[in-house]
Amino acid sequence: MTKHLRTDLTRLEKLLLNEGGCVEEAMRKAIYALQQRRADLARLVIDGDAEVDRREVEIEEECLKVLALHQPVATDLRFITACLKINNDLERVGDIAVNIAERALFLAGCPPIRIPRDLITMMEGATRMLREALDAFVNEDAAAARRICVEDDDVDNCHRAVFHGMLLVMQEHPDEIERAMQLVSVSRNLERLADHATNIAEDVIYMVEGEIIRHRARRK
Amino acid sequence: MTKHLRTDLTRLEKLLLNEGGCVEEAMRKAIYALQQRRADLARLVIDGDAEVDRREVEIEEECLKVLALHQPVATDLRFITACLKINNDLERVGDIAVNIAERALFLAGCPPIRIPRDLITMMEGATRMLREALDAFVNEDAAAARRICVEDDDVDNCHRAVFHGMLLVMQEHPDEIERAMQLVSVSRNLERLADHATNIAEDVIYMVEGEIIRHRARRK
Repeated sequence: MTKHLRTDLTRLEKLLLNEGGCVEEAMRKAIYALQQRRADLARLVIDGDAEVDRREVEIEEECLKVLALHQPVATDLRFITACLKINNDLERVGDIAVNIAERALFLAGCPPIRIPRDLITMMEGATRMLREALDAFVNEDAAAARRICVEDDDVDNCHRAVFHGMLLVMQEHPDEIERAMQLVSVSRNLERLADHATNIAEDVIYMVEGEIIRHRARRK
Repeated sequence: MTKHLRTDLTRLEKLLLNEGGCVEEAMRKAIYALQQRRADLARLVIDGDAEVDRREVEIEEECLKVLALHQPVATDLRFITACLKINNDLERVGDIAVNIAERALFLAGCPPIRIPRDLITMMEGATRMLREALDAFVNEDAAAARRICVEDDDVDNCHRAVFHGMLLVMQEHPDEIERAMQLVSVSRNLERLADHATNIAEDVIYMVEGEIIRHRARRK
């Protein structure tokens, strides 16, 4: 590999990790805003999304530039295509943080509603999966990435539990229907966060081992 | 461009369009299953998803092979990166068809519930957007692609209307809560279908014009 290509790939990795840090922070803030009924924090997340979008376009342009300039092969080509895909997932994670922040904003203006235990478990589980997926990327750790794919089932199970719990709340307390719907929406967004973390983990496995493992006994 | 590269790109385009036809058909069947309460059709869609997944992996491997083998630049590079991204969106559209089919399966086993007018409008609008996006890809028609990005707002507005309509139904008829939740879920899935169609349209614009237009006054 030429020294120039090495420099460009290091730069690309750094850009991607900065974007990852940015969406992780947005997700943490959105969840905190929901739990603490902090409309101000929720607004910060919503306003901050333009920056995530800017970074995504920058990274994609960088990937394409490196591809066109160096025409890399083998491991380097796999690294860049993994960056392209992870970049896409991170931007979607940013959208998910905004969706949760919007729910937090709405709920901060209503009488309080109890946040179900399973939803809190999901918040912890799905954000941990994202962290682990980004760590696996940095460390090129396919074994760690494989463990993340397994965790996705736990989050899916929690989502089902939240959905059914909220159904009961709505049936027993019609005045809580709108708020309960918002919590179901948060739960669905966390389920999608876990899916994106799993996508990233799969891209890491592909990057390290050159094998596409998607759709093997996982998610529909 | 070498004759060999031309053959490979034509083959890639054909694979992608076949996958597109496959997910369009799945989406049509899922919607029909929902409207006509056809559990058998819904099951067909669910069982058919493995084939969509297989196609996605095949296309991605093909894209990477062409990249590694020919190290294409400029227009050809943009074509392949667009294929990589559209492939990803089409696979997600396949997942959306499965989600809608699962809702259809559930609802086919319950007493009938009226499907709101706005939801039917969304079904028509979102599937039309997907068709138009694939047409814009085949015809390399950036102007048509730009029109699709505008249509996304109509679908978003319909989703909001469905959400609020269903809230009222749930408040007035607690026994319909679970079914109404399923329709909200269908509506959210159709909103995401329109987002994916928009992504594809944006990729077409990038492919044709070399410009990334994402996040310009569109979607959060």
